[in-house]
Amino acid sequence: MLKYPKDLLTLIAHLKKLPGVGKKTAERFAFSLLEWDNKELFEFSEGIATLKERVQACAECGCLMDGVQCSFCDTSRRDKALLCIIGSSRDAYAIEETGNFRGLYHVLGTLLSPLEGKTPDSLNLPHLEDRIKQLGVEEVILALDSTLEGDATSLYLKEELQKNGIEVSRLALGLPLGSSLDFVDEGTLSQAFSGRQKF
Amino acid sequence: MLKYPKDLLTLIAHLKKLPGVGKKTAERFAFSLLEWDNKELFEFSEGIATLKERVQACAECGCLMDGVQCSFCDTSRRDKALLCIIGSSRDAYAIEETGNFRGLYHVLGTLLSPLEGKTPDSLNLPHLEDRIKQLGVEEVILALDSTLEGDATSLYLKEELQKNGIEVSRLALGLPLGSSLDFVDEGTLSQAFSGRQKF
Repeated sequence: MLKYPKDLLTLIAHLKKLPGVGKKTAERFAFSLLEWDNKELFEFSEGIATLKERVQACAECGCLMDGVQCSFCDTSRRDKALLCIIGSSRDAYAIEETGNFRGLYHVLGTLLSPLEGKTPDSLNLPHLEDRIKQLGVEEVILALDSTLEGDATSLYLKEELQKNGIEVSRLALGLPLGSSLDFVDEGTLSQAFSGRQKF
Repeated sequence: MLKYPKDLLTLIAHLKKLPGVGKKTAERFAFSLLEWDNKELFEFSEGIATLKERVQACAECGCLMDGVQCSFCDTSRRDKALLCIIGSSRDAYAIEETGNFRGLYHVLGTLLSPLEGKTPDSLNLPHLEDRIKQLGVEEVILALDSTLEGDATSLYLKEELQKNGIEVSRLALGLPLGSSLDFVDEGTLSQAFSGRQKF
């Protein structure tokens, strides 16, 4: 049986590491790259090679910086009393899009997942506590995934932060906008009931 | 509203050009690339930059070569009397996997699609006819997509090749293996009827 050329196989192996990309999709990507012109391939390759050097995370909040200044850490325009804890730097953009939050962010970078070796140490709690003290944060909002890992992390952080007398809240659980009750799972419905709001 | 860093946006624009990748998926890819280590990013970038130089198409049949020799053109081990016409170099690997075909291949590189400016000239027919003459091909098998473009191309090639008295066949149309009649569309079913085989 004939195999793909060696260099194509290497490229396919790299493409397969992208999230949600399996063997077939990676092959499709590789063959489509073969049809790009040289300039496009060069620019794409350049973008990947220089990615980490050009796009760096803010040492303070962990959000991505465009240039040398972190626009998420601009305390002159943002509310220092509110700190929103997020799992990945990408979440900050989603929250900014809502236009609802004017506080500061704190990127954990990872969620608790003992099986993958992500223990509380990976969360770098001392840095978080230092920031909270320095900024004079009054409320910490936990905006983590509503998954096993996210919930475990939220619970852990809540306990640790409340020890220091910090007010902790987390995002509301309930019906997504535009959803029909028929299609909402039991867990969500039950959370929506217990978290019902005065109307 | 805060935007992604400039360099990340450029990378996302490149990723969006991959087939089936929209804005959201490209963003997911870009953020996942941020988590790769430097070595992986370097190798990936290198693989893309050198792709076209290292993976080249055979000037004769259009299939991809692994090194300097085309393993699809090895006439000592393959049947010169059979020529299979395929749309893209990738199709040759799928056909090789069946283990059913021992002839030679001819990659068109494109299908007829007048709206996209793909006219009969793009098919490079003179080269195909030269190959047929030189190899002494007795039967040409059209193995093109069963789409509008594929069918138009098959029809065009059939007429052109039959003018020169070459025997032309095309892949059978019918039920895919393991399919249930309930789920088969009318067109396929009708083709399966008209192409029914003695049993």
